[in-house]
Amino acid sequence: MLKNEMTELLQIDYPIIQAPMAGGVTTSKLVAEVSNSGGLGTIGAGYMTPTQMREQIREIKQLTTNHFGINLFVPNEFTVTEDKMNSAKQQLQPIREQLNLPQKDSSEIPNSKNVFETFNEQIKVVIEEKVPICSFTFGIPPKELIAALKQHNIILIGTATTVREAVEIEKSGMDLVVVQGSESGGHRGNFINGFQESLIGLMSLIPQVVDHVSIPVIAAGGIMDGRGLMASICLGAKGVQMGTAFLTCIESGAHQVHKDAILNANEDKTVLTRAFSGKWARGIENKFILDMQKYETSLPGFPVQNTLTQDIRKAATSENNKDFMSLWSGQSPRLAKKQTVEILIKNIISDTFKITKDK
Amino acid sequence: MLKNEMTELLQIDYPIIQAPMAGGVTTSKLVAEVSNSGGLGTIGAGYMTPTQMREQIREIKQLTTNHFGINLFVPNEFTVTEDKMNSAKQQLQPIREQLNLPQKDSSEIPNSKNVFETFNEQIKVVIEEKVPICSFTFGIPPKELIAALKQHNIILIGTATTVREAVEIEKSGMDLVVVQGSESGGHRGNFINGFQESLIGLMSLIPQVVDHVSIPVIAAGGIMDGRGLMASICLGAKGVQMGTAFLTCIESGAHQVHKDAILNANEDKTVLTRAFSGKWARGIENKFILDMQKYETSLPGFPVQNTLTQDIRKAATSENNKDFMSLWSGQSPRLAKKQTVEILIKNIISDTFKITKDK
Repeated sequence: MLKNEMTELLQIDYPIIQAPMAGGVTTSKLVAEVSNSGGLGTIGAGYMTPTQMREQIREIKQLTTNHFGINLFVPNEFTVTEDKMNSAKQQLQPIREQLNLPQKDSSEIPNSKNVFETFNEQIKVVIEEKVPICSFTFGIPPKELIAALKQHNIILIGTATTVREAVEIEKSGMDLVVVQGSESGGHRGNFINGFQESLIGLMSLIPQVVDHVSIPVIAAGGIMDGRGLMASICLGAKGVQMGTAFLTCIESGAHQVHKDAILNANEDKTVLTRAFSGKWARGIENKFILDMQKYETSLPGFPVQNTLTQDIRKAATSENNKDFMSLWSGQSPRLAKKQTVEILIKNIISDTFKITKDK
Repeated sequence: MLKNEMTELLQIDYPIIQAPMAGGVTTSKLVAEVSNSGGLGTIGAGYMTPTQMREQIREIKQLTTNHFGINLFVPNEFTVTEDKMNSAKQQLQPIREQLNLPQKDSSEIPNSKNVFETFNEQIKVVIEEKVPICSFTFGIPPKELIAALKQHNIILIGTATTVREAVEIEKSGMDLVVVQGSESGGHRGNFINGFQESLIGLMSLIPQVVDHVSIPVIAAGGIMDGRGLMASICLGAKGVQMGTAFLTCIESGAHQVHKDAILNANEDKTVLTRAFSGKWARGIENKFILDMQKYETSLPGFPVQNTLTQDIRKAATSENNKDFMSLWSGQSPRLAKKQTVEILIKNIISDTFKITKDK
């Protein structure tokens, strides 16, 4: 039951992907340990330079001979007016003052052209370094890039939040699709549907997608243990992608303050915000989210807001100040544990056998 | 596997409850047919007078000798200022004009006292007519009413949207708890947590509640077939409560326009609104919801707004005009079918056997 098209395509023992959390969580140790334990470790490379990617890929290859994956953010055209930029800066000014940070220099703000160039270079690294699996968030890459990756036998995974998005991912030629339920932590991956439309719980999302695509469906959002894996399989998924469950593991690079915030949170304490990055994402409510709530609708989009808040998040992190950190979490923080990756995966597998036996 | 504490307590063959949809959906035929097919039919009596309740209970007893249930809305104190009432009326005026409806007479607006009196009388009917099972939405009834119902061996079911609410329901002495995921159609049942906090997907909600209560947990929200039932059981629930799946059945009293709207909808077309009743509820987006969106935060609460829109919904229904009807639906409309209750339940059960065999 745990061996299927998904485990075959990805060449892994168990149908478990460690979600590609960007921003330092997916250390080489975490990724390699997941792959060594029978799952698929994934580098969250969305914010990485091509050089950083190459270094980490090579480091992981020293730590595991098993398959692992890498995740990239598909860029979208964006513009921001001078006015919007200035009011966004003003909104953040009181927080900068609290943290003794200087004014943000506008020259650091990326433009669309940079972002597309970086994406092309990132893809080049994936091909050159022969990463066996590449997953995408925030859209579908251009045809020619998909063709280039496939020519090098790289297995491709898309991220969808609705049936419509999953169907488009299948049409693009990708090999598997992750369906992201409303439960999931971090950024929403919607790219055709609007944000509100994309908030579909996995109990609804999995079977409706499964009925409309023929590539393997991987469930993501709030899944933390063998119960979630078995439920996803009953709903028609072939496996799961888990973020929060790996984030609190010993091997994860998340800041201890972030891990502790999850370990102490309840299911009713996560909220959706675009204050950190300009894209909607789920995290544990804190002072930054509350302070910025009144600007929520007028904030610049991704990646502009993300760049504007970068040094705020960095300063807060180095001061162990959870008030201004992005404490991403899915809706199941009560199920999070401080444990090793090996124990997490072992427990999931033994739980699934127990559940199957009980039936 | 399908026989457990829940089926034992409710004395039913299959762990399937037909959700108590108020407003004419739960005809005697629907309720009796569910109970005759091995599930638990439930009268949605939230808006009924004690007399209407008594009549329907007696009618159902003519149609089935099996157990069935009844659902009541737990009243909450409410007040509305003259100002708020007048602006609410003004907001609805353009719609009234379109439908040729007269001004609303304020004398029809209920007050807190009426609502509590009606609730007491409703409970009296449940006891006098010996309804075997009584479920509650929007809160926990006063201690003395719970005691009275339990003294008559009536099995009690509460509705929770978070762990905290489920724990309080267990403490109150109720026998089972329905956990309502963010996927579910119709009114949100949150009563301790705020609306936003209450939007937790079932993949997260079920296991976290199961870990914190010892009474049987019943999953509700987006469940439409054997896949959803099996997934809920894997997550630790003992059974399911299904609304939308029964709403489109032949025996349901929902208007054909409502049934057709669900049968033609996709998972990304339901929205949350408080425009119809003053309480947040999920339904298919239509003109009324869009027209009222700008007033969403300032509308009077339940049941005031509900009374103000009553004749609008009624007129729209009698004109087959879906623009102004409340088209409640969960997030799985693609899985809805036009079929008999018997076929729906038979298919669920045969699906569960198939899923179990595949494992």
